[in-house]
Amino acid sequence: MTRSVDLNADMGESFGPWKMGEDGALLDIVTSANIACGFHAGDPDVMAATMRLAVDKGVGIGAHPGFPDLQGFGRRRMQLPKQTLGNLVRYQLGAAIAMARAAGGQVRHLKLHGAMANMAAEDVAMARACYEAALDIAPDIIVMVLAATAQQQAVRELGCNWAGEIFADRAYNDDATLVDRSLPGAVIHDPDLAGPRIAKMVAAGAIITESGKHIPTRIDTICLHGDGATAVRIARSVRENLVAEGIEVRQFPAAR
Amino acid sequence: MTRSVDLNADMGESFGPWKMGEDGALLDIVTSANIACGFHAGDPDVMAATMRLAVDKGVGIGAHPGFPDLQGFGRRRMQLPKQTLGNLVRYQLGAAIAMARAAGGQVRHLKLHGAMANMAAEDVAMARACYEAALDIAPDIIVMVLAATAQQQAVRELGCNWAGEIFADRAYNDDATLVDRSLPGAVIHDPDLAGPRIAKMVAAGAIITESGKHIPTRIDTICLHGDGATAVRIARSVRENLVAEGIEVRQFPAAR
Amino acid sequence: MTRSVDLNADMGESFGPWKMGEDGALLDIVTSANIACGFHAGDPDVMAATMRLAVDKGVGIGAHPGFPDLQGFGRRRMQLPKQTLGNLVRYQLGAAIAMARAAGGQVRHLKLHGAMANMAAEDVAMARACYEAALDIAPDIIVMVLAATAQQQAVRELGCNWAGEIFADRAYNDDATLVDRSLPGAVIHDPDLAGPRIAKMVAAGAIITESGKHIPTRIDTICLHGDGATAVRIARSVRENLVAEGIEVRQFPAAR
Amino acid sequence: MTRSVDLNADMGESFGPWKMGEDGALLDIVTSANIACGFHAGDPDVMAATMRLAVDKGVGIGAHPGFPDLQGFGRRRMQLPKQTLGNLVRYQLGAAIAMARAAGGQVRHLKLHGAMANMAAEDVAMARACYEAALDIAPDIIVMVLAATAQQQAVRELGCNWAGEIFADRAYNDDATLVDRSLPGAVIHDPDLAGPRIAKMVAAGAIITESGKHIPTRIDTICLHGDGATAVRIARSVRENLVAEGIEVRQFPAAR
Repeated sequence: MTRSVDLNADMGESFGPWKMGEDGALLDIVTSANIACGFHAGDPDVMAATMRLAVDKGVGIGAHPGFPDLQGFGRRRMQLPKQTLGNLVRYQLGAAIAMARAAGGQVRHLKLHGAMANMAAEDVAMARACYEAALDIAPDIIVMVLAATAQQQAVRELGCNWAGEIFADRAYNDDATLVDRSLPGAVIHDPDLAGPRIAKMVAAGAIITESGKHIPTRIDTICLHGDGATAVRIARSVRENLVAEGIEVRQFPAAR
Repeated sequence: MTRSVDLNADMGESFGPWKMGEDGALLDIVTSANIACGFHAGDPDVMAATMRLAVDKGVGIGAHPGFPDLQGFGRRRMQLPKQTLGNLVRYQLGAAIAMARAAGGQVRHLKLHGAMANMAAEDVAMARACYEAALDIAPDIIVMVLAATAQQQAVRELGCNWAGEIFADRAYNDDATLVDRSLPGAVIHDPDLAGPRIAKMVAAGAIITESGKHIPTRIDTICLHGDGATAVRIARSVRENLVAEGIEVRQFPAAR
Repeated sequence: MTRSVDLNADMGESFGPWKMGEDGALLDIVTSANIACGFHAGDPDVMAATMRLAVDKGVGIGAHPGFPDLQGFGRRRMQLPKQTLGNLVRYQLGAAIAMARAAGGQVRHLKLHGAMANMAAEDVAMARACYEAALDIAPDIIVMVLAATAQQQAVRELGCNWAGEIFADRAYNDDATLVDRSLPGAVIHDPDLAGPRIAKMVAAGAIITESGKHIPTRIDTICLHGDGATAVRIARSVRENLVAEGIEVRQFPAAR
Repeated sequence: MTRSVDLNADMGESFGPWKMGEDGALLDIVTSANIACGFHAGDPDVMAATMRLAVDKGVGIGAHPGFPDLQGFGRRRMQLPKQTLGNLVRYQLGAAIAMARAAGGQVRHLKLHGAMANMAAEDVAMARACYEAALDIAPDIIVMVLAATAQQQAVRELGCNWAGEIFADRAYNDDATLVDRSLPGAVIHDPDLAGPRIAKMVAAGAIITESGKHIPTRIDTICLHGDGATAVRIARSVRENLVAEGIEVRQFPAAR
């Protein structure tokens, strides 16, 4: 049996005249792209161009909906009624499905962005509201969830297709939450550290915390970041270390 | 052989806390609803509610995309590259398709809104850019066009499904253009006038101009307006006069 | 010594093609208008028209900044850094000052809107951040605060001009908070009830709670609402009952 | 008599998480900064930071209003009623005045952005509508105009303070219009060419066209660009060549 894992990154986060991210370089490394849907980043032109690029490179397309907050890049928490949340997700996913079709591809997965994702990782009911809305439109879509959070509990309850995700560049506490960004070592900037660390976790089938504790969990995909000075180098290091460890890097399969 | 005609009106033009139009009353009269897609009016919550209502009443759902200009209600001309226009249409249509599916319905037709529609009525290349973008996503969609304009020329060139439309409340010049709004009689406010006039045109299969000239044209649908003091009364009068004339009011069939 | 009180209402909440509120009727009743600044409602054209109307009727102009959230009408809580909050307030206040000057008037007061106001009523530091930002631009501006809340504590700490406000149509708990909207009697819809009740409070110089308890507080202004079926009738009843009680209705004076 | 000239560049064009331009480097070279006001670029946080930087470096602050079109960066033509245009300019200028005051500075000049500027350069009535609106708010403001265009005619008619501007990196036709961007040589990318060319024009007090024709005109300021690979190098070259030519680089004086 060959072990395998998917690599994902957020993309299509440019907007109008403003460029963001190293989409071109990352599309040669990742197997899945989470593409912004125009509410927190991206616009119809950026979506079209990014999806065409993803199709050309054989990278799986995901819809990456967020809060309607361009200035805040969807990172500011907003309190929305569940019905409004559901409609926001449906609208953005629908737009993404159309743009992917026009680019000759299709939307395979869904991943929530920014504050919407963080809130859903803490609140099962909110996660369910978002995911149920997406499944209304696309019943077979693969929901990408932060492993061992309320997001994962939500997809288990819904019985839908899902993929569990860990971060390439964040340290974990013993309860599987992320080490607070303000603490030293919380964010891993060194490619030589990030790569071997992730390869070890995937090989072990577990999150390995700062203290060395193993938390067994399904790891279907690794979240890479697209900005920051070392983003592309970390991405490459993760990929190379996985391959060296005998782990195949490929799109996650759709499976319950 | 029974003659028939469709009645359409713009709907779902509320936004956030702001209400617009008499959607509830009009949905009992029309057979097709052109539903705003969030760029010039409407928001995901309004779209969801309006589509559910349309499904409940058996009214056909249309996507009604416009320029990204809420303050101007999509009525201010914007000069956009054709590629950007196409992506705007794809994005809004995709969102509408998803919202309709979630409401238990489907998008049957497409109609351009406001300044986008006016510009496309004068410019075949622009009309084609918008319609081709829509057909990329939904090849069988019925494109609703202003009869005897560049919009109609575009759908003929594309060979797609289409429906020709005339206005219930606007007077026509002898070249099939609308009488300028600033001239007396350009807009018909009297329900007792509007109803018989339209019934006569549909029976004749022709636009009847102010001077009495007949311009033969395919009339598949009548555009009713949703706001203004007498909007609902004009709508009722048109419907009643058509029925009295032996013309069936029903959704346009999909046909090349 | 003549007692007096100011009457205020939110105005200029139309946006683009969408109308909201009974600004024309209310401007004959109130002495201060809180005018939306384009982030949660209002647009430059609406601001210009509303301010001109306020100047014509001799009603005091206030800037009424809110969160950048048109769809949510500024009523959805957003978590913003204090610096961003301050800049939002400065920007909106600056725009309002310019629009008032062009209309031949001036901005006399500041009142926070919606979720921004509610959050500031619970959080002194947030209230201070907003008010300090306004005072940077306009050191003599009168800050309108919800009586007996963290907003009031903030203006006391800052030592700026302020006016204390109570609601014409909301019942109060014994700790001076508002009775929850979901409870019976929380919102007063009957003009015959609202008017005498407010006159009694102003005469007593105290909030009178549901249980009859008196909480002495400075009451400089009464907040009237501009929408709802009975809004204008409640506004008139409040004004008439105050006058009948011998309380003069006039703009609050600027005083520390 | 010492000749002098001002150097200006657009700044504060970042938005939310998106960075644009080399503001830091350019502020060491220019004497006037045209700061975006949040409609086509910039946001209240970006405005605050940019203005503080300009104040620190002693660079003159200008308001740089544009169309409400973030995605199009204010470069797409929009047809707006004159009254709406005026209110847009007042609103953005008012916001800029407030932000400048909070940063310890003040708005000295106004320059229209993008499509708004291009349309005003062709249409005196439109230019007047924009400038009159600004003068309503700030009667002494210096209006920066494209030399020898309808913008300049408008300020002459209005009798207000103004400064005439030429481009550092664009070739001119014999009628003082810009050479079309699609033609070779229309845009000057070579710093070694741009610098001497501008120094010659300022020394001559004339636009020197491609054919070598001299069009005498008041040159108060040179427009430098903030983006592009060679932007900062061109800016430095222009400054150095002016100084070498004995022309002082300093803020334009306010004069009729």
